[in-house]
Amino acid sequence: MIARMTAGRTQAAGVLLGPGDDAAVLAAPAGRFVVSTDMLLQDRHFRLDWSTPYDIGGKVIAQNAADVVAMGSAPSGFVVSLGCPADTPVEFVDGFVDGMWAEARRAGGSIAGGDVVRSPLLVISVTAFGDPLDREPVLLSGARPGDVVAVAGRLGASAAGLAVLAAGIDPGRFPEVVAAHRLPQPPYEAVLGLPPTVPIHALTDVSDGLLADVGHIAESSGVAVDLDSAAIADPALRPVAELLGADALAWGLTGGEDHAFAATFPAGQDLPAGWVAVGRVAAGSGVTVDGAVWTGPVGWESFTEGG
Amino acid sequence: MIARMTAGRTQAAGVLLGPGDDAAVLAAPAGRFVVSTDMLLQDRHFRLDWSTPYDIGGKVIAQNAADVVAMGSAPSGFVVSLGCPADTPVEFVDGFVDGMWAEARRAGGSIAGGDVVRSPLLVISVTAFGDPLDREPVLLSGARPGDVVAVAGRLGASAAGLAVLAAGIDPGRFPEVVAAHRLPQPPYEAVLGLPPTVPIHALTDVSDGLLADVGHIAESSGVAVDLDSAAIADPALRPVAELLGADALAWGLTGGEDHAFAATFPAGQDLPAGWVAVGRVAAGSGVTVDGAVWTGPVGWESFTEGG
Repeated sequence: MIARMTAGRTQAAGVLLGPGDDAAVLAAPAGRFVVSTDMLLQDRHFRLDWSTPYDIGGKVIAQNAADVVAMGSAPSGFVVSLGCPADTPVEFVDGFVDGMWAEARRAGGSIAGGDVVRSPLLVISVTAFGDPLDREPVLLSGARPGDVVAVAGRLGASAAGLAVLAAGIDPGRFPEVVAAHRLPQPPYEAVLGLPPTVPIHALTDVSDGLLADVGHIAESSGVAVDLDSAAIADPALRPVAELLGADALAWGLTGGEDHAFAATFPAGQDLPAGWVAVGRVAAGSGVTVDGAVWTGPVGWESFTEGG
Repeated sequence: MIARMTAGRTQAAGVLLGPGDDAAVLAAPAGRFVVSTDMLLQDRHFRLDWSTPYDIGGKVIAQNAADVVAMGSAPSGFVVSLGCPADTPVEFVDGFVDGMWAEARRAGGSIAGGDVVRSPLLVISVTAFGDPLDREPVLLSGARPGDVVAVAGRLGASAAGLAVLAAGIDPGRFPEVVAAHRLPQPPYEAVLGLPPTVPIHALTDVSDGLLADVGHIAESSGVAVDLDSAAIADPALRPVAELLGADALAWGLTGGEDHAFAATFPAGQDLPAGWVAVGRVAAGSGVTVDGAVWTGPVGWESFTEGG
């Protein structure tokens, strides 16, 4: 089954030795590499009735690739362990593997190896590797007062799609947000295409919601951030929000799993293509919205959070 | 809980940035790195009534570190994901983490990060990284006719320990083999201490049993291997084998999880300290014992194999 993960595929240039020996060998031309890992479980992080195997494969790669890109690094390779029941259909494995490879390619890497074990439920573990390119790894801790906070990618679309699925509404009525939930497409190029001359002070991906993830930057950098609600509420989400009696701004502020990128750029820096200003860094601590602490609804939770 | 994995610990020199940002950063001074990953499940790969949390933590690191060393590379860091039930005692986590760190240190690395998720059963995923040092990664495919096959470390001790536990015999009667099963101690230094001037043609660790793992070398290299039973049967295992009506030689040939190292050295090469000749490479294919195909008992299976 490990052979199924890589048979007939061409490894990315950064994977010097793929599966088949005691270990794989990856290139690290900068003399160092970044690494991120996640474990995902059936019915906790994904549901087989809401997502196709292809979507699940793509999503587990996307969320780890986004962590690598959130360091300013280019994904090179991934290793994946899959625990699955003995009666897992081969179609599941094939769709899952196809989804992984498609997203790995989109991120610039390939599946360098892995492990397959029998398990009573589906468990997926992904470890992603990246190459820092010509840039020092971009940390959460580099934001400075005066910086502009900017975002590349959508905010709240995955939360809106999850709300549609959870409400039992026909996904065909809102295909775009449902697709955004099922298979997020982090805008890797918005980061990886930046010339090294464009300074980035702090960078993260939006996995837990903008408020939470910008909060990590604020806390690590010892600064305050004020977000601009007008720049965050996505008009495209309003019809979904109206139907569900939900708050589109809350999805934008607290919705997770979009894997957009949030960065702070020095004041006066022209924002690169694909980036939209959503706030400002100041001295102090904490994150506010239009100058006030956010007390609105929390628009998103993992669907079994607390379960 | 991720903080519990690394709080108060000092990272190894090869871990440039530990947990707390979007990703960790590891050194790769050779411009490349080796990577190995495994997933382990409760009651399939370990049993809470047979092993302490400390043993389990040590064993999952040892088996991945051994894969890295089996490439001729020095372990630098590990990332670990732990899926565990909500009611997992904090003592389990602390013991597990202590065991991981002790073995990571013994291997020369540290725990650089990870993920903790809620899961109905214990699931552990370990990814290990290594630095190729001054040597090209040593592959399975380099054995040549005339090479000497040699082993560093014990063979069959883990299988004997497993047999003791499975038979319900007091572990105190055979503490050494039970310890070898619970917490294998791969002899990393036998590989990592070799001067780069000592040629190694092929190298692997003995995780599936000597016959199987030397079989991987034979197949990858397109050669035959004949093993010498007299060099493999461990006299220290005889009392256990006699009590259980088992075959100590079968344990040595087919017992897994010892994580000894098996290598082929060119003919005429003085064997380095810690290495014992156990066979010879010839033209052809397949693995024989004393010139004949092994038809004796298979001394070891994962305790839920087929389950």
